[in-house]
Amino acid sequence: MAEQKATNITWHEGDVTREERQANLGQKGVTVWMTGLSASGKSTIAVALEKVLLARGIHTYRLDGDNIRHGLNKDLGFSAEDRAENIRRIGEVAKLFGDASMITLASFISPYRRDRDLARKLHEDAKLPFLEVYVDCPIDEAEKRDPKGLYKKARAGEVKGFTGIDDPYEPPECAELVLRTDRLTVAQSVAELLALLERHGFLVG
Amino acid sequence: MAEQKATNITWHEGDVTREERQANLGQKGVTVWMTGLSASGKSTIAVALEKVLLARGIHTYRLDGDNIRHGLNKDLGFSAEDRAENIRRIGEVAKLFGDASMITLASFISPYRRDRDLARKLHEDAKLPFLEVYVDCPIDEAEKRDPKGLYKKARAGEVKGFTGIDDPYEPPECAELVLRTDRLTVAQSVAELLALLERHGFLVG
Repeated sequence: MAEQKATNITWHEGDVTREERQANLGQKGVTVWMTGLSASGKSTIAVALEKVLLARGIHTYRLDGDNIRHGLNKDLGFSAEDRAENIRRIGEVAKLFGDASMITLASFISPYRRDRDLARKLHEDAKLPFLEVYVDCPIDEAEKRDPKGLYKKARAGEVKGFTGIDDPYEPPECAELVLRTDRLTVAQSVAELLALLERHGFLVG
Repeated sequence: MAEQKATNITWHEGDVTREERQANLGQKGVTVWMTGLSASGKSTIAVALEKVLLARGIHTYRLDGDNIRHGLNKDLGFSAEDRAENIRRIGEVAKLFGDASMITLASFISPYRRDRDLARKLHEDAKLPFLEVYVDCPIDEAEKRDPKGLYKKARAGEVKGFTGIDDPYEPPECAELVLRTDRLTVAQSVAELLALLERHGFLVG
């Protein structure tokens, strides 16, 4: 067994590092955190950005309500406490994807500043980059769009605790980028995001 | 706004698919789930496998206690209920990595069969492959190794609910691979895992 143990130690010393994963994938990981009201355009823009990045051969993964709320966080509701835990877990998962050297696009309403700040801190503590993008659409415009009829339901009292109606949205104070989606086309927003990624050194190679 | 909405619809229709991510990365995602007693060799073997895969240019990410218990699941303890939730969340995260086309090595004691079966079912429902590997080391051998002194503490009653001592380990009944780590070297175990991945078509290209 002495031999086996020695082998174990040798292997363990050689843990694959984040830098080796970066070299293998040819890119560095980063979390792009898109926050904003329901119907502000977060997911639309994230999908569009993902397509452009894919066309450039960049490895990207998108986290959003579809793959999180029905899976990892299906045990959570919409109380302030559950919203906090929702964002905490998403922050932790984004961190893992960043550690795996992926460009991670997280698009969530994430209405509370302290929850987003925690997600940022989790990244900072792990020495992983975090770019907060405020997808800023005035509520009257978002309510006019209302693709899922949720604002209508919230106004009718059928949905409780709806962000912007009877639950607060706290805008970011130091977002790395603000996108006024009532004034920008999707293509313009994507161009701004690409410029942001480029400025921070994530589109090299 | 009609134009903006139409643009949104066009973009959304073009969601990036799992197949496009696979083509971009040049590989398919799979979860290799390594279960076994504490000190059975799970993490040692996972690290060694990760190194070999990296050398082949294959994109791999390892989930283990170090990056999960101190992060995503730091709110969970070791009761049966918390163990179940621990494994559920890891299963969900592995699923996301698989969807992102990564080879994911999950090494966790995961002592209860129903919890591992749930992780497998999550993958099956998402049409993602899941390979269960039983890292089978007799408890007397694991206890002899005891690199962290945990068995000693459990025997002394200083650690409660320790798998194999005062909490059960339920061996897999249909694991895709069994590694008798008291008889195999680390290199032999890695060779078996590579053969498993090859048989299932994950080492092509």
